[in-house]
Amino acid sequence: MASRTAAVPALRCLTRRTPALRNRLNIRTAQAARRCFSTAESRRFSLVATRNFKHTSESYPDIQRDSRFSKVTEEHVRYFKEVLGSGSAVIESITDDAAQDDIEPFNGDWMKKYRGHCRVVLRPGSTEEVGKVLKYCNDNLLAVVPQGGNTGLVGGSVPVFDEIVISMARMNQVRDFDEVSGTLVVDAGVILEAADKYLAERGYIFPLDLGAKGSCHIGGNVACNAGGLRLLRYGSLHGNVLGIEAVLPDGTIVDDLFKLRKNNTGYDLKQLFIGGEGTIGIITGISIQCPQRPKAVNVAFFGLESFEKTQQAFREAKSHLSEILSAFEMMDNQAHTLVQRVTQNKRPLEGEYPFYCLVETSGSNTEHDSEKLQAFLEDVMEKGIVADGTLAENETQLQSLWAWREGIAEALGHLGGVYKYDVSIPLKDMYKLVEDTRARIAEAGLLGDTEEHPVIDVVGYGHMGDSNLHLNVATRHFDKRVEEVLEPFVYEWIKERQGSISAEHGLGIAKKKYIGYSRSDTMIQLMKQIKKLYDPNGIMNPYKYI
Amino acid sequence: MASRTAAVPALRCLTRRTPALRNRLNIRTAQAARRCFSTAESRRFSLVATRNFKHTSESYPDIQRDSRFSKVTEEHVRYFKEVLGSGSAVIESITDDAAQDDIEPFNGDWMKKYRGHCRVVLRPGSTEEVGKVLKYCNDNLLAVVPQGGNTGLVGGSVPVFDEIVISMARMNQVRDFDEVSGTLVVDAGVILEAADKYLAERGYIFPLDLGAKGSCHIGGNVACNAGGLRLLRYGSLHGNVLGIEAVLPDGTIVDDLFKLRKNNTGYDLKQLFIGGEGTIGIITGISIQCPQRPKAVNVAFFGLESFEKTQQAFREAKSHLSEILSAFEMMDNQAHTLVQRVTQNKRPLEGEYPFYCLVETSGSNTEHDSEKLQAFLEDVMEKGIVADGTLAENETQLQSLWAWREGIAEALGHLGGVYKYDVSIPLKDMYKLVEDTRARIAEAGLLGDTEEHPVIDVVGYGHMGDSNLHLNVATRHFDKRVEEVLEPFVYEWIKERQGSISAEHGLGIAKKKYIGYSRSDTMIQLMKQIKKLYDPNGIMNPYKYI
Repeated sequence: MASRTAAVPALRCLTRRTPALRNRLNIRTAQAARRCFSTAESRRFSLVATRNFKHTSESYPDIQRDSRFSKVTEEHVRYFKEVLGSGSAVIESITDDAAQDDIEPFNGDWMKKYRGHCRVVLRPGSTEEVGKVLKYCNDNLLAVVPQGGNTGLVGGSVPVFDEIVISMARMNQVRDFDEVSGTLVVDAGVILEAADKYLAERGYIFPLDLGAKGSCHIGGNVACNAGGLRLLRYGSLHGNVLGIEAVLPDGTIVDDLFKLRKNNTGYDLKQLFIGGEGTIGIITGISIQCPQRPKAVNVAFFGLESFEKTQQAFREAKSHLSEILSAFEMMDNQAHTLVQRVTQNKRPLEGEYPFYCLVETSGSNTEHDSEKLQAFLEDVMEKGIVADGTLAENETQLQSLWAWREGIAEALGHLGGVYKYDVSIPLKDMYKLVEDTRARIAEAGLLGDTEEHPVIDVVGYGHMGDSNLHLNVATRHFDKRVEEVLEPFVYEWIKERQGSISAEHGLGIAKKKYIGYSRSDTMIQLMKQIKKLYDPNGIMNPYKYI
Repeated sequence: MASRTAAVPALRCLTRRTPALRNRLNIRTAQAARRCFSTAESRRFSLVATRNFKHTSESYPDIQRDSRFSKVTEEHVRYFKEVLGSGSAVIESITDDAAQDDIEPFNGDWMKKYRGHCRVVLRPGSTEEVGKVLKYCNDNLLAVVPQGGNTGLVGGSVPVFDEIVISMARMNQVRDFDEVSGTLVVDAGVILEAADKYLAERGYIFPLDLGAKGSCHIGGNVACNAGGLRLLRYGSLHGNVLGIEAVLPDGTIVDDLFKLRKNNTGYDLKQLFIGGEGTIGIITGISIQCPQRPKAVNVAFFGLESFEKTQQAFREAKSHLSEILSAFEMMDNQAHTLVQRVTQNKRPLEGEYPFYCLVETSGSNTEHDSEKLQAFLEDVMEKGIVADGTLAENETQLQSLWAWREGIAEALGHLGGVYKYDVSIPLKDMYKLVEDTRARIAEAGLLGDTEEHPVIDVVGYGHMGDSNLHLNVATRHFDKRVEEVLEPFVYEWIKERQGSISAEHGLGIAKKKYIGYSRSDTMIQLMKQIKKLYDPNGIMNPYKYI
């Protein structure tokens, strides 16, 4: 092995790290890396309340309040207080004007893009309470918006007009955990990171991980079918969620909180709530299959000369790393450069490359995993697939490598307005969307280094392992001309390749009108049937989804 | 390591096998083992046509033909021939009495438990043809039964009265395969083993495996949400199926054949067809995520002194083998002894133990996997969890170890009638059901070695990794007294432990009336809503499911 290594000079920086050092890596490293982001994000979320921004009703003047819905009255408020108690379980400015300040954090999203006119926030403490208030709202034609951690990206968790927010934050208990099977049962309002910490203490891991883990609720994750960073390894929530407890608008409790892996007794109705974005009911409890926590986590980071080579590297990673491959993340040099500009951190690799990849392995045996990773790296460097690379040799380095990937969204946010597209595209075409978009914006004279050009850069990054691209157009300021160049171009481009216009962020308000680019009229009609079946009055999260 | 081994004499038979020999093991071994069973089963299936057995309408006198349904006329047959052609695409005895012999294989199930009075079998060759005939049947109130490989265990795929069978056997093409992402798109009628062979040639594996793989259709597997042998490793079809094409009774084509892993654009309607048992539509195409084929497969087999120790062994296996653990199968001595009695094969272990486990690993590196398995075995033997064990050292041995597990169902079948229960129970209670059932039958004086006792033995085996028990009561002949002792006792027992009365076999006719033991009235009502929504005339697979 030593002689092979000697023939590949670029590998030196990888091989000179001693296995002994790498052996000390453990799962805490990856967690630490993410935690620092969640904290940053939490900070950002808390600012929402203090800043005012445009109401959704102004940004989307074509959406009109549905006149069938009642306005909340003092009588309604009395009922809510009767059911939930008059403490912090009901926050309302119907009888108390001053309370509006407390309501504002529930009214707006963290991106400051969507803001409603809500005057009543209900915070039920049990499934029965959810059932009572929801039935009352349905009977009285009061529209509602279920809200978890309010960390979504498409405006799905905030009201548009005066819908009542039903916040799940008070339902935040772990109900049950089976240490043999790994089945966890939680209230919908449990924060993802809290559940993961609970599991870590018991040698298990939550099969979902994402940047907002410090704030997002598991109920919200399930309602939005969150994908995140571990999907490549642990699969989707459609496979991992074993059971759901939910409340329908008429107060019916869907008691499908099954705790075992196999149950073939009838239609799997819980699946409709996974990704249903709170439009047919409110999820109140979840049981989920959790895998054993990996004992070893390793991270490598490389530079590559083309997207073609990035694809080759992914194929090699699947072959060499197979069962331990837990992340294969891609970012282009534009994204990498933006992070560098904002953070002023030293780049992990000396040279500059058009593409970068972050590869993470999670397994049960550090030595085996390191050996597999080493063999993979030697192979991709010997074949000239990877130009240069580095391997994290301790927690800090692992954290800092992840930061180059996870820091992209935040870095982009520092520059001004960002047009964000979260899409699925067959791998071979995945990056072409970024190139085509960049060329189109350049052609329109909108891209440049100076103030008169609205667009700073067009960047692409994402979960390569899931064919999930984040196309981001970073602007100095939002500009109608940019929007016109982008839409419907991006959606048409994706439709041609049979991709998805929303890989993981959902529809919400943002993508409601574009669903036709990913779904046929037949599918949309069938979905509307389901909506009508469960929510005939349409009170659940109106003006959104389909 | 050598000195630790020396201290554990029982481990000798495991450690004396050279790694070199074990290294020669590869994936073909496991396949070979299963193939011999599929062939046996195929043989058995072909006998169905030649033997007559009781009609379902006699065994279930309480099920009456729904008088709303039309009887098939010559005019109907003319239409079917017009759409499908008059060759083998329409087999009917309406105009041709002699054809009834050709129809019989479609009328009965392989267990010889369910038999219908069907006189027309349609074999469409395309989704459009399915659409046309189904719409016609719906318009004319002709009841239909979708049929795949007809390998089910609950009578779901054969008619009860004169329902028309729609066989998917002619739709048997692989439509597409992406060698980078591993996404396979197939017609519903592709045989599971054929798909797996196709994938094997390309370095991939189908994420589902089961005894009937030589006959069952992928469409049927999806319609029944088959679990099988690889669920522990690759997860359920709810997670792996990426898209479905299906036809609704009114001829609507559900075109949801998405090929990527992430798509959050609306309700995930395809999930209703997974496990829907052909009651709301006919699946015509499937796209599915297939993992890389493991390069190394190892199998170990042990004897254990108690079910408590079997549970401990499972926990240790999860911890030591983690990402490479692909099967953890349990069987009791009763099951093991029955196989021995029927096959006359030499037992794999010298002593006799109350419980046996088969552990399979599938990974990408033979050396690493062997080392992990070795460490696991040393650990469980040192701790006294496992009493004795053996490791397959070549293909033949691997095949013969699997045969002790997969041969159980067949061995039971040789003895006479078998009452079969396929259930999910929390692990800690899993085997108690077998003990309680055995005690109950013994108490009733029904269990014994002589002819006057109907019950030969009560055996338990199953997919321990999925909490999935197969409770089998082997009888010399079916006996009403046995049935009365078993039911509803077994279902009540399961209900108390919040298990499932059908872990993987589905409802069909067999379990239709027992669904209340696993589902609340609310859930059943919600399921009926879905049935009514998609199949208002109730023509799809009537008299079954919910």
